[in-house]
Parts: sequence; structure tokens; C-alpha cells
Amino acid sequence: MKEFDLIKQFFTNQTVKHKEVKLGIGDDCAVIAPIEKQNIVITTDTLVAGVHFPLNTSPRAIGHKAVAVNLSDIAAMGATPSWISLALTVPSVDEGWLSEFGAGVFELCEFYNVQLIGGDTTQGPLSITITAHGLTPKDSYLTRSGASAGDWLYVTGELGDAALALQHIKGEVELEDSLFSTIRTKLDFPKPRVLAGQVIREYASSAIDISDGLSVDLGHICQASNVGANIVLDALPLSAVLRESLLAEDAVKLALSGGDDYELLFTVSEDNKVGLETALSHAGTPVTCIGQINASQTISTTLNNKAISVNMAGFEHFS
Amino acid sequence: MKEFDLIKQFFTNQTVKHKEVKLGIGDDCAVIAPIEKQNIVITTDTLVAGVHFPLNTSPRAIGHKAVAVNLSDIAAMGATPSWISLALTVPSVDEGWLSEFGAGVFELCEFYNVQLIGGDTTQGPLSITITAHGLTPKDSYLTRSGASAGDWLYVTGELGDAALALQHIKGEVELEDSLFSTIRTKLDFPKPRVLAGQVIREYASSAIDISDGLSVDLGHICQASNVGANIVLDALPLSAVLRESLLAEDAVKLALSGGDDYELLFTVSEDNKVGLETALSHAGTPVTCIGQINASQTISTTLNNKAISVNMAGFEHFS
Repeated sequence: MKEFDLIKQFFTNQTVKHKEVKLGIGDDCAVIAPIEKQNIVITTDTLVAGVHFPLNTSPRAIGHKAVAVNLSDIAAMGATPSWISLALTVPSVDEGWLSEFGAGVFELCEFYNVQLIGGDTTQGPLSITITAHGLTPKDSYLTRSGASAGDWLYVTGELGDAALALQHIKGEVELEDSLFSTIRTKLDFPKPRVLAGQVIREYASSAIDISDGLSVDLGHICQASNVGANIVLDALPLSAVLRESLLAEDAVKLALSGGDDYELLFTVSEDNKVGLETALSHAGTPVTCIGQINASQTISTTLNNKAISVNMAGFEHFS
Repeated sequence: MKEFDLIKQFFTNQTVKHKEVKLGIGDDCAVIAPIEKQNIVITTDTLVAGVHFPLNTSPRAIGHKAVAVNLSDIAAMGATPSWISLALTVPSVDEGWLSEFGAGVFELCEFYNVQLIGGDTTQGPLSITITAHGLTPKDSYLTRSGASAGDWLYVTGELGDAALALQHIKGEVELEDSLFSTIRTKLDFPKPRVLAGQVIREYASSAIDISDGLSVDLGHICQASNVGANIVLDALPLSAVLRESLLAEDAVKLALSGGDDYELLFTVSEDNKVGLETALSHAGTPVTCIGQINASQTISTTLNNKAISVNMAGFEHFS
């Protein structure tokens, strides 16, 4: 196991230092000196090779994605990411692989001012678990449970590209090389909506990040808030590649059910609608109103102002 | 992946609730309201099936050990464990296995008043990563780097039983069934020295938990503190089973190099020696003085007051 200690060298050269972190990598624990005016938010996500990313994914993309999916959860709380710990399990010590993986981790950490405070490196089937911490002003954070009937439903960015790339990799959909390489970037290097999360914290009533797919994650908001929702299918922000590559109905279905988008899905009261749209516009975050919350406790869909039934994977999940 | 969501039901029935935990399991993140008078310590450890525990280990033991190895790191900082997140990767959903695993996790969590605040359940080769948090009074915690020449070297409990059990499982050592079942408990259900860690916080100059073996972990203290140490081999607290089962020399070697003991190894100045021994005695923690720190930057050993050279696995690790 000694060579696994050598892995540590790949994770000690980092530039980010938070004043709250009194002790970082290298002891039995990291030590944090918290500030009472802030809340700390904590999330953990695991990526398993062949389950959460295709086996041929580049190590740089794996490192990026392992951080990104965790920062996406931090963003969904409206928090600012601050530090992470990294548990890396690899079958063997491959210096080239580790160097690229580390580069993927640190690129994102440095961009978002996130400090690596510790972790563990072990031998076994390739898997990465990151625990990410973030900070918010005290008692000011978003949850899944704050949506009310009448609130508007919003989503950042565009939907379905990551799921389309995965379908192509699995051989289920044919795509031109140039289109595929565009959307493979969305699958491999998702951009967590960190800035948008902080912006909407002042305006949104509830939020979640879309990891399991729009319909499933909207179900989580509805269940936690004890409400229902209607999705206006005409309004869904489908990417250009998605519209070019699939029939309209299939594109909509993929936008509803495809996972791995890591966009934010959130609700806003009528009173906060204009303020939110203005603030996100200043932040340069594309955002679309895709429906409205209601008291029904079910999720419905409309097209051309008419109710329409769509068989969405994941819907049975929400009862 | 839907059935993996069902796993959550095994982890929602818990009785421990900390006042600092504003939001526990069930949202994108847990939320903590920290107290400025306290430091938060954080550690992450992964257990991989077949690497960190034998494949035939009971699920209850796996759950126990995954928590215990993390609480042992918290104890080595002199902190009080407070909450954990759990990332569980299992090949399939086996309700019986999950129920026993969860029982192992919660038994230890409830005993030490530790709240499960979140996590992730994924499909893949069996592996568990826990991130544990603990609390200490502000600026009052132990590190590996505080040892000084002249400090006395102490260890809690007895050494070598877990390593002996592992050698028997691997077929390297024969043991009577009754002896094996005694020490298998030490391998499968290690007891983190949580109370002892809090007691020594006021007295010790440095501390570490013994996970890699006494010689390797003493090396970590010496390296971090820029000192050396002498171990008095006659003083090592060998268990009765170890003394019965092995030749004296082999028993000592195993006590020096065997891992998985999860005892605390720590240093104490001459001035604090009596206070420490008295406090640990009141806490009911067995403790042994096994040597002394010096300025040599090497680790030496003596037997019958004479220098003796012992070939200890792991020693090349410390340079």
C-alpha cells in the first residue's frame, strides 16, 4: 500500500487557501474555524467508473466531473463552495492518469476558490467520492421544500445535451462527429451553476440541481414542498443539437428525463419574478420560465396551451 | 438506479440530533449552524471490500468499522465526533445486507452521539467512504506536529491483535478457534478511543491513531514534528493472545508493524506526565509509556536497556 501514499504528492500543490481552514492536508483531520454569521452546507457524491461515467472518459474529465457534481449541489443551496475532501480509489498507481485527474480537480477548485483539505487514497475499482462544503449567510439558504402554489418554475441553461451524448456513446442515437464533440463536453465537463445559485438565493422559494432529470428532480421539489406543477413543453430550453438530432417529441422527452444536466431548477413567487430575471441577466446566466407550481400534488404538462400526457421515465418515482 | 433510492429508507431512522444541524438528510446539502467558540475537524476514510476488510466480513462489522476508523481520526485530534456523511457503493440492493450494515453504522453513531447528515448510495463494487466531523473548543486540538525531544511516548490499549487475526485469515498463522474469535472481534469491531482522545487533549503534545502500524504512525509524528524516538520493546503492551500465539520476537514485530489497531499513539511532556496518567486512569483507559522522543530524527529501539536493531515493515516509509 506504500505506493498509494505517493499519490498524496499529486494533491498537495494547490494555491487556494481559506482563512477558515486552520489545518489542511496532512494530519488525522483538517481543522476549520467557523464564523457564526455563516451556515456551512455539506454534500457527498460518488462517481463509479462505468456507472457515472463511460469507461473511456479522460482522467481530466473524471476529475472535473467529480468536483462539478458536488459543487452543483452546493449551488442548489445558494451557497458559495469553500472546501472539499477527496476519497480516490484507483486500481493501480498510474502517474500519468493521476496527473491528469488532479489537473481536472484543481482547475475547477481554483476557478471556484475551493480548497482541498484532505482525503484518502486507496486501491480498488476506480471510484471517487467527494464531500464538498459551502458557506451561506446565516439562515439564508435554499431548500427543496419552499415552493408554493402560484410560484413560477425556472431552469438555467439548456436541457438534454448530456443525455443525448450518453445515448450516442451507448449506440442508441447516431450523431455527426462535430455535433457529438460539442455535446460530449457537456457530459464530461459539466459547469456547476455556482454563480447563479448565489444570485437566486435572494429571490427563489425552492431549488434543486438537475442530476437525475428534470421530471424526477421536479418531483423532489413537489414532494418536499407538498405541491404539484405544470410544465409548458413549448417553453423547454432544448439545445440546438437536440433539436437538430431528434424528432420534436423525442427531444422533449429527453429534456424531461435525461440526467447529468447539472442545471438549476427553481421556483420564484410572482413578486420576485422581475427581480430574479434582472439579477440573473446581470450575472449572464441564461434562464427560462418553464411552468408553474400548483396545489395538485401531481406533475402535468401542456403543449400549445392544451393538456398533454407524456410518458416520462422517473414519474412513478414521485407519488 | 431507482431501487438505489430505496436504500435511503435504511438510513433515515436515527435518533441522534445535534442542535448545530439545521437540515439533515433529504436535501441537496445538509446545513450546519456552527458555533464560533468551536473548531470543526473533518476526516475522510474509505474501506474497499477485499482490501480493507476480508470479503467474508459480516455487513454489521463493515458498517461498524467504516464508522470506527473515521471516529478514530477524530479521536486523534482530541475532538468530539458530531456528524458524518456516508457514501455507500454496493453491487446490488440486498435488503438483509443493508439492514445489518445500517445496524452496524447506527450502533456506533448512537453510542457516540453522532448524527448521519447525508450521503450517496450508488451501484458498483462494494466500498464505503465516510466523512466524519468533530468539534473541539476553539484552538484546542491535537496534531502530529507538536512532539519535542524529551516528551514521553504513550499508547492506549494493546497492540497487534487485529494484525494477528488478519494473518490467521490469510492462513499465515494457525490459531485455536477460541483465540481467533477473541481477536477477530478486535479486527472487525475496533473501538475508536473517543473518550481517551478528549482526555489527552489537555495534556498531550502530539497524537495520531494507529491505523498503519505503530512504527509507520510514529514515523508520521516524528516527520511532522521534526524529531526522532526510541521505543522500549520490553514495554510494548502485547495482548495475551499475541504472547501465547507467537514467539516473543515475532509478537514484538507484529506489535510494531501490524495495522488496524486504532489505538492512540501520543506524546506528553515531563510536566504533564502525572496529570495525563491520572486523567486516563479516571477515564478507565489503559495506557502504556513505550518510549521517549529525542532529537535524532530516526526511530531506534531498545531491549533490556540495550540498543537493538529491528527490521520493521514500514520503516523505509520514514526518512
